[in-house]
Amino acid sequence: MAESQPGRVAVCPGTFDPITYGHLDVIERAAQLFDRVVVSVAVDSGKAPLFTMEERVRLAAAACRHLPNVTVAHFEGLIVEHARQHGAVALVKGLRVVSDFEREMQMSLMNRALAEDIPTIFLMTHADYAFLSSSLVKEVFALGAEVGKFVPPEVEAALRERLGRRKG
Amino acid sequence: MAESQPGRVAVCPGTFDPITYGHLDVIERAAQLFDRVVVSVAVDSGKAPLFTMEERVRLAAAACRHLPNVTVAHFEGLIVEHARQHGAVALVKGLRVVSDFEREMQMSLMNRALAEDIPTIFLMTHADYAFLSSSLVKEVFALGAEVGKFVPPEVEAALRERLGRRKG
Amino acid sequence: MAESQPGRVAVCPGTFDPITYGHLDVIERAAQLFDRVVVSVAVDSGKAPLFTMEERVRLAAAACRHLPNVTVAHFEGLIVEHARQHGAVALVKGLRVVSDFEREMQMSLMNRALAEDIPTIFLMTHADYAFLSSSLVKEVFALGAEVGKFVPPEVEAALRERLGRRKG
Amino acid sequence: MAESQPGRVAVCPGTFDPITYGHLDVIERAAQLFDRVVVSVAVDSGKAPLFTMEERVRLAAAACRHLPNVTVAHFEGLIVEHARQHGAVALVKGLRVVSDFEREMQMSLMNRALAEDIPTIFLMTHADYAFLSSSLVKEVFALGAEVGKFVPPEVEAALRERLGRRKG
Amino acid sequence: MAESQPGRVAVCPGTFDPITYGHLDVIERAAQLFDRVVVSVAVDSGKAPLFTMEERVRLAAAACRHLPNVTVAHFEGLIVEHARQHGAVALVKGLRVVSDFEREMQMSLMNRALAEDIPTIFLMTHADYAFLSSSLVKEVFALGAEVGKFVPPEVEAALRERLGRRKG
Amino acid sequence: MAESQPGRVAVCPGTFDPITYGHLDVIERAAQLFDRVVVSVAVDSGKAPLFTMEERVRLAAAACRHLPNVTVAHFEGLIVEHARQHGAVALVKGLRVVSDFEREMQMSLMNRALAEDIPTIFLMTHADYAFLSSSLVKEVFALGAEVGKFVPPEVEAALRERLGRRKG
Repeated sequence: MAESQPGRVAVCPGTFDPITYGHLDVIERAAQLFDRVVVSVAVDSGKAPLFTMEERVRLAAAACRHLPNVTVAHFEGLIVEHARQHGAVALVKGLRVVSDFEREMQMSLMNRALAEDIPTIFLMTHADYAFLSSSLVKEVFALGAEVGKFVPPEVEAALRERLGRRKG
Repeated sequence: MAESQPGRVAVCPGTFDPITYGHLDVIERAAQLFDRVVVSVAVDSGKAPLFTMEERVRLAAAACRHLPNVTVAHFEGLIVEHARQHGAVALVKGLRVVSDFEREMQMSLMNRALAEDIPTIFLMTHADYAFLSSSLVKEVFALGAEVGKFVPPEVEAALRERLGRRKG
Repeated sequence: MAESQPGRVAVCPGTFDPITYGHLDVIERAAQLFDRVVVSVAVDSGKAPLFTMEERVRLAAAACRHLPNVTVAHFEGLIVEHARQHGAVALVKGLRVVSDFEREMQMSLMNRALAEDIPTIFLMTHADYAFLSSSLVKEVFALGAEVGKFVPPEVEAALRERLGRRKG
Repeated sequence: MAESQPGRVAVCPGTFDPITYGHLDVIERAAQLFDRVVVSVAVDSGKAPLFTMEERVRLAAAACRHLPNVTVAHFEGLIVEHARQHGAVALVKGLRVVSDFEREMQMSLMNRALAEDIPTIFLMTHADYAFLSSSLVKEVFALGAEVGKFVPPEVEAALRERLGRRKG
Repeated sequence: MAESQPGRVAVCPGTFDPITYGHLDVIERAAQLFDRVVVSVAVDSGKAPLFTMEERVRLAAAACRHLPNVTVAHFEGLIVEHARQHGAVALVKGLRVVSDFEREMQMSLMNRALAEDIPTIFLMTHADYAFLSSSLVKEVFALGAEVGKFVPPEVEAALRERLGRRKG
Repeated sequence: MAESQPGRVAVCPGTFDPITYGHLDVIERAAQLFDRVVVSVAVDSGKAPLFTMEERVRLAAAACRHLPNVTVAHFEGLIVEHARQHGAVALVKGLRVVSDFEREMQMSLMNRALAEDIPTIFLMTHADYAFLSSSLVKEVFALGAEVGKFVPPEVEAALRERLGRRKG
């Protein structure tokens, strides 16, 4: 699965269950910094996901279709191995002002211990999305909130279908 | 269920599984700042509660019976919708020095995104209760600790009945 | 200087050197929660202020003139004494996601130790102003930045006059 | 089970599922500060452990066999009661730069409320292990990582046996 | 200046400008954990101190006179060198829930880099003193606050003499 | 001063008073991610620097001479304007586990408000340098510490010359 196109590749790993505008804000900026960006959906999310891996990949691809140098993949196992297979020079993670810092630091230091050659770089999520997470979107949607300002239309439709709520 | 009494109403939401002196410290102060305070027990706590919703409401009401402008209610769905139904001008949350900050910030920003008109205000929990949470009280009670300085007598009795321990 | 008008009074203390839209966001919300709000400018800011106390009061008053139940005052000495003289039931502080938490906690606990009857309540500053502080505004203005989205027009004009920059 | 040997005893409590070099770094330093150190394995870890209590005790004992004044025990119930039974003057916990602080603070304050006479002392974990936790080791091992720089050989062997992976 | 008395020695370093009940809480606990404790006053505080080094030593000694195994010293230069001269096995620092963590971590890691053999151990300051610092005591005293619950009587008298306030 | 060489340029801004191995760790990784990296020394450090701007540039250049795609520059005014002049696509900052997070977040959000098109990306500083800062190096050097593991030889020599200490 090694890549042969020229230029620098970065991998944006995550569970993306589902992708939000917070993720997209980070992916768009990564797409300006690197020649190619692979959005890599973790098969195993550590907890029971709402959407299957295929659905999560499809929704991520729909959200990124305006970004020509972004592709969506999935992975099992160590993210650093997956990144190596793609010839990536970096992992890219969003960093929200609220609530990510310590877990992301821990993963970043562990990944550096496992693969010294693939640094993790952090991009600040836009202040508007400082509080946004896939979990919170699912939680408030299930409670009846409109989530159109947090996720793309395809994702909102998928949530509606999966969680059985009528439109507004 | 709209309210017709005059004055400003605040809602103190929570799981209250069970209510502690840390919660009560916040409710008492809220009761001095607003004309009426509704202590609102979340039906769904996100995890299996130790006490039923009815029990949690009853224990909260017992703990607040010395506060004439405080009533206890329960809610399902979005807290901001519940607050609107009660004509509330604010949500009131306690903020412990330890361990609340990021989750509370995240919820507060999400709630502001969902309902710009109902701000969340934070009151510092007393330093004596800086470490106190319902979960921790249940955990140490189950391990054999005396919890009389953390919860009201009715709550201690309910814990004893539910978890089957004899009095010290 | 005791107050005789009816209703609950809150005090918003600060250095306001100068007032920013972050401050104003908090003051506007406080004005909806309380009958009267006193914006209290600390005479002594702990460091050499850019604007005199009179200027800081004037700029705060200009920024708040659309809020009929808000007045601007100044104080020396302990803020809790000043709040008592105004018959205040609470101090109101803004809490930015970034960088305020520990200092504000420390002051809030000290003030509670000094005056048990006047709680500090925190309102989250809007995410758009999560990073904003008077110091940072002065710093980037001095370096040549446009600050019209961070401070009211009167404040921008005062910065221009004081720091000698021409309009962009 | 009260102790009769002279000198000061400290207890290092934990789940140790399994013991890592981060734990060992703290235990070794505690062994220089106190006459005897009891590494106390919690029977109940709050979640389903990978290794049984007996296995966790055996792996901890193997890792500590070069430390003559360290013994390994297990406990149920309140750690402060267990510490009292061993005549301990202190609980010793490691503090990682990343991710422990708030939970450890909360437990330390609760334990002080339960047993004023047995303080918790914190030792900084070495910077090399700042990100290390038993959970993270199990997680990356299961995904295929080599963990020889994070855990002693006996633990690596036990992980291999339990999780069924061949040696690299 | 090497010490010849038997037993383990710990050093509690600080500026102590002036000593507070928060410091004393930590020193008292250290005095139970070690055979001897040296309270070490830094000659150079990094900023202009309110009290001279001699005054800070005298006030610390007065506050500790009920603790037979505690002595007060002063030091210039690296604290780890001073600790070595006293044959210390550890540095002891108080850790307040609020506002100490990062600076103390940084110093602890630097000191470990400079002197691997002398660990820093942290004791949690009592929740009642979670917000207390010498700076804050001086600040609120200067503004007119009573500080008798924060500092010993000798310190309160010294503040009164130095800052020229009459007794309440 | 616009750049005409092809490829992506990143700017690493800082005071570098003086450059440390912590800075260098970040610069080396940035040099692998981008075609060219400009290490940009802030003329005005906000406080009186130990080294002049020329000295800070010279020491940074010496430390980076093994990195062919890294150049050293200096700047006054807004860093985002300087970055634009160099055609930079990103600012690169190191993020230490300890003590940087909030200030760096604040600056990153302010810079995004000032220049939406130039994101700040963060690289984790190596765990070995988690505690390292120019200020701390100067502080412990002045107190007599050896700093050869924290700064390059040229910097150690410059510290020795400036602060008048003989070699150990």
